[in-house]
Amino acid sequence: MSTITADEAVADTTAEVDLGVALNAAFEGRHHERRAAGRAAYPTDGMHRDPSLGLAEARQWTLERLKVLVDHGFGQAIQPAESADEATLVQSLIDFETISHGDLSVAIKSGVQHGLFGGAIASLGNDDQHDRFLGGALSLEVLGCFAMTERGHGSDVQSLETTITFDPEAGDFVVHSPKESSAKTYIGNAAAHGHMAAVFGQLIVDGTEHGVHCILVPIRDDDGSVHEGVTIGDNGHKGGLIGVDNGWISFDHVPVGRDLLLDRFGSVNTDGQYESSIENPNRRFFSMLGALVRGRICIGGGAALATRRALSIATLYAQQRTQFRHPGTEDETPLLDYLAHQRKLLPAIARTYALGFAQNDLIDSFARVASNPDHQPKEQRALETLAAGLKALNTEFANATVQTCREACGGAGYMSENRLTQLRADTDVFATFEGDNTVLLQLVAKGVLTNYREVWGGLDRLGMVQASARMVGSSVIERTGAGLLAERLVATARRKGDAAAFYDRGWHAWMFEERERHSIDSLARRMRAADRDSFEAVNAMQDHVIFVARAHMDRVVLDSFIAGIEACDDGPAKQTLEELCTLFALTSLEADAGWFLAHNRMSDARAKALRKHINQLCGDLRPRATALVEGFGIPAEWLGSAMLEV
Amino acid sequence: MSTITADEAVADTTAEVDLGVALNAAFEGRHHERRAAGRAAYPTDGMHRDPSLGLAEARQWTLERLKVLVDHGFGQAIQPAESADEATLVQSLIDFETISHGDLSVAIKSGVQHGLFGGAIASLGNDDQHDRFLGGALSLEVLGCFAMTERGHGSDVQSLETTITFDPEAGDFVVHSPKESSAKTYIGNAAAHGHMAAVFGQLIVDGTEHGVHCILVPIRDDDGSVHEGVTIGDNGHKGGLIGVDNGWISFDHVPVGRDLLLDRFGSVNTDGQYESSIENPNRRFFSMLGALVRGRICIGGGAALATRRALSIATLYAQQRTQFRHPGTEDETPLLDYLAHQRKLLPAIARTYALGFAQNDLIDSFARVASNPDHQPKEQRALETLAAGLKALNTEFANATVQTCREACGGAGYMSENRLTQLRADTDVFATFEGDNTVLLQLVAKGVLTNYREVWGGLDRLGMVQASARMVGSSVIERTGAGLLAERLVATARRKGDAAAFYDRGWHAWMFEERERHSIDSLARRMRAADRDSFEAVNAMQDHVIFVARAHMDRVVLDSFIAGIEACDDGPAKQTLEELCTLFALTSLEADAGWFLAHNRMSDARAKALRKHINQLCGDLRPRATALVEGFGIPAEWLGSAMLEV
Repeated sequence: MSTITADEAVADTTAEVDLGVALNAAFEGRHHERRAAGRAAYPTDGMHRDPSLGLAEARQWTLERLKVLVDHGFGQAIQPAESADEATLVQSLIDFETISHGDLSVAIKSGVQHGLFGGAIASLGNDDQHDRFLGGALSLEVLGCFAMTERGHGSDVQSLETTITFDPEAGDFVVHSPKESSAKTYIGNAAAHGHMAAVFGQLIVDGTEHGVHCILVPIRDDDGSVHEGVTIGDNGHKGGLIGVDNGWISFDHVPVGRDLLLDRFGSVNTDGQYESSIENPNRRFFSMLGALVRGRICIGGGAALATRRALSIATLYAQQRTQFRHPGTEDETPLLDYLAHQRKLLPAIARTYALGFAQNDLIDSFARVASNPDHQPKEQRALETLAAGLKALNTEFANATVQTCREACGGAGYMSENRLTQLRADTDVFATFEGDNTVLLQLVAKGVLTNYREVWGGLDRLGMVQASARMVGSSVIERTGAGLLAERLVATARRKGDAAAFYDRGWHAWMFEERERHSIDSLARRMRAADRDSFEAVNAMQDHVIFVARAHMDRVVLDSFIAGIEACDDGPAKQTLEELCTLFALTSLEADAGWFLAHNRMSDARAKALRKHINQLCGDLRPRATALVEGFGIPAEWLGSAMLEV
Repeated sequence: MSTITADEAVADTTAEVDLGVALNAAFEGRHHERRAAGRAAYPTDGMHRDPSLGLAEARQWTLERLKVLVDHGFGQAIQPAESADEATLVQSLIDFETISHGDLSVAIKSGVQHGLFGGAIASLGNDDQHDRFLGGALSLEVLGCFAMTERGHGSDVQSLETTITFDPEAGDFVVHSPKESSAKTYIGNAAAHGHMAAVFGQLIVDGTEHGVHCILVPIRDDDGSVHEGVTIGDNGHKGGLIGVDNGWISFDHVPVGRDLLLDRFGSVNTDGQYESSIENPNRRFFSMLGALVRGRICIGGGAALATRRALSIATLYAQQRTQFRHPGTEDETPLLDYLAHQRKLLPAIARTYALGFAQNDLIDSFARVASNPDHQPKEQRALETLAAGLKALNTEFANATVQTCREACGGAGYMSENRLTQLRADTDVFATFEGDNTVLLQLVAKGVLTNYREVWGGLDRLGMVQASARMVGSSVIERTGAGLLAERLVATARRKGDAAAFYDRGWHAWMFEERERHSIDSLARRMRAADRDSFEAVNAMQDHVIFVARAHMDRVVLDSFIAGIEACDDGPAKQTLEELCTLFALTSLEADAGWFLAHNRMSDARAKALRKHINQLCGDLRPRATALVEGFGIPAEWLGSAMLEV
């Protein structure tokens, strides 16, 4: 890697802009036009919040800003589940992404109001409820809460304590928090702005519990006074997102009209009897939660936007900021010329592309499943698995990467006017809300193992081993759509074996597949051997379970990247994407080099050489760094970072 | 790992308290009494800041709180360099640690005022300056700035642009910022409270530049008005530490009395000629900076305190917080019973112990070197290398671990009242101030390679290879004091070879040594082969350089841990420390498993089994978790975390 001269830089400028534009079109793929339209509609005046605003002012500012966005048409693409069409479903996700270019408190407040409160009505309500409540939720006429989490139960939603008891005499429901631990908490819109809450609790009819259902409960009057029987508290200052008014809500035998139970999956009929189209309470519960998958997709998408914003800031800064004399010259060296700096930013850029392509596929999968009332349970499970996995990957990656970017900008990165610390503070909680990442990765593994059982379930232990040997495991990994291309590449690479080159995509895909397949096989074997009713036995496998989830997700992400490159028809952009994909793949292999070596999937020489090839790719990509972040599609002036010369 | 029953828990309580006390005594080692005395003197009323305070109130609160600490004797142990004694030197470090139990803005403000501003006077000033200024700096009578960093130059201190020009006619100095990039920035005490600044700049006498020196410049009057020629700006809101009033200062030909140059290492005599006891300007520069090593030791120590506070909070919470029904019982499972949760917290606890023992040794090294005016350059270099390395390790570990703890506490962890997010925000900048971690790790490697050159320097390339083969490299790694015990263990383990057990400390020490020795050897070989004047050639090794630094530091830390255990004479505490040390060692080996396999230092079977042994250790240690964090010596009520039942 050599420093580019000023002349070369000028000559490169036009080419870079074109490359950036072409990369952006490829990166945004099938949703490029919709995203561009979103950016065109986005009101940029006042998109960033003054970081010194206090709690009360920040909350007020956030509400006002959300109103501006609604006036510009954002957050409106929420339709009743039965009549949802693909285009609108996609639009709902792109809206959240676009809003995430600005203050994230606004994005989360929209997520609470439109995605969760509106989404609960749209997904769980009946026609009458759609007519009465959905419009007000979308227009902000009725600000609402999504009251699921309780003090005592977050991840374990099935154990919520709040009760929704049918009172046959009055013909209505009674919502109640039996214990202190039953209070709803960390609820957005609760502390200040909400007038209604979609409350999740155990539905009890005639003494029988029917599991978790959701009911709309008015909590404040028009004048803001809290309803009788409802107690609301303020969660106060938080680590970030202080524009969102999180609070707690507790109910003391609050009567609620029977027409307010969101009863798509379970209702009480005029005879006062419980009715549901889904017999199995467990399946009913997961259907109810499955209808809410949009939230997870949005959070993953919002985290991805935060990552892209931070990487754009740090990458532009690393080219303008110099430090230490460049040997043999009078100039100082731009930070991005240092290998250590390249290794902080360029593999992160590569992974950002990878996750972006996978998110595109997730968006399509969501639109396809949610617009088709006759979708198969298997498609729903695949969607939920992908949404859980990408939420976990995107949010943990956002936290790590925004922090890396902060540090890469030194002291300047710590100043609020440069936006990185607030991004970091705001995305922090993305790792644990809408599903704790550790729990979500376990869900991913569960989804993967369910597929596995369907393929292998009928075989006994010996039969399985024989079948394994015969089928080389490839049928464990079911590829569709984006994955088919990768599947062909793997087949070719297998034939080459050790002769496959470092830059051979088939070798990457093969290695990713081996990591996934072997870890699933061995986990399944351990599961079969273990007493699955024993906490200790299952608990002892928890790290293995998480490894499987990561191996699966990285393979799925690579598949998406490969398909995304295939769809790109701009030569230079395609070439750049190939290099980014290799950088992503080699970085993932390097991180697990111990595994590949110990499991004889890689030779010592090859493992040792990974470092060199990664360094080489970083050097090769460095002159195109500006174009790489332009590919994220964020206008430089939107970054709002005082230190950038834009 | 099985859940402990309530009966067992009660029976264990006394034992745990005793174990916690014994662990604390061992962990704090030779400085246990001084630390205990510090805690006894520490005023706990109002030790935490209300996180919702705005910028101005937070700054005022921080100043008031610092005054309270000074009234209680904190921050006073700063002595003139020539007369410093070991006990007082140690006390200055323990003071900073103790203050770090509370709000970190207060700790950093004390660091700026006492450690940096006071420290500059004490280390770089003459007797007269000590008499005139040191007292006021320590008593807070004169609040001061440490004005080193400029807009244009942070890590590259040698290239500072500010000029300190001797004016022979007036007989004084003129301090000037020639360019916009020369303004001092991110300077604590600048924006609001400072009256004087220790300004670093290029000393120019009779047209000749003599390199970076430091001069005291009055910047504000008693009434707070800014002096003529001085311009001060406010850095505004930051990602954390908002109680510290960081700002920028620019000088327009400001005349400063000749008696204000801190002239221990370089002065202007009565004839207007430059004089210095150190001929070589480069050596003079590093002597000047070396005198300021205390700051790095304090930051590492403060980061360690933040880590311990966060781990204490998360570990106590993980035992009181339950989620999901425990199979076969009516109870729910405490979070810490889950393997995934154990793996988040217990290896971090183990590493915290490891770093703590190394910090103890660093404190001793500092006291020994700084109290001995006749110390050898080699001792100074060893001290600076250790201080740089432990600052980098402690601060990056703090950021990662506080974040892990935040996530381990779910939504509750995000609420400011539980203290984790503010700890995270405040420690963030520790990674880049007082030396950027990436730069510091390169300093560590440089220090290590300098030792290497001294040992191998005389040999040509062929001779070196032969010598390597003969001496098995052990002389590259020079061990003294804490390391001697480890050296003996390694010798024994080498004899056992592959037969050494997983729990054999000698095997751990041997592996750590192999990682360090081999990576130094190969780096030295690459350095010799490369054109060291070529930026590209040197830059291509930057990741190797950083690997060497980490390998060296982890080895040094393990040496300290081993010596710390040896010094412990409480049976159960010693046994627990042995297990923690093994957990630390195996976790470090697991992180680099790819390296050990590719370099044939570990068999596939052994690498694969690391995971199992780490899990086993986590399970074994889990019942002692409370005692483990009690060993950190933080009274539970000091944690100030609303969610904890203490």
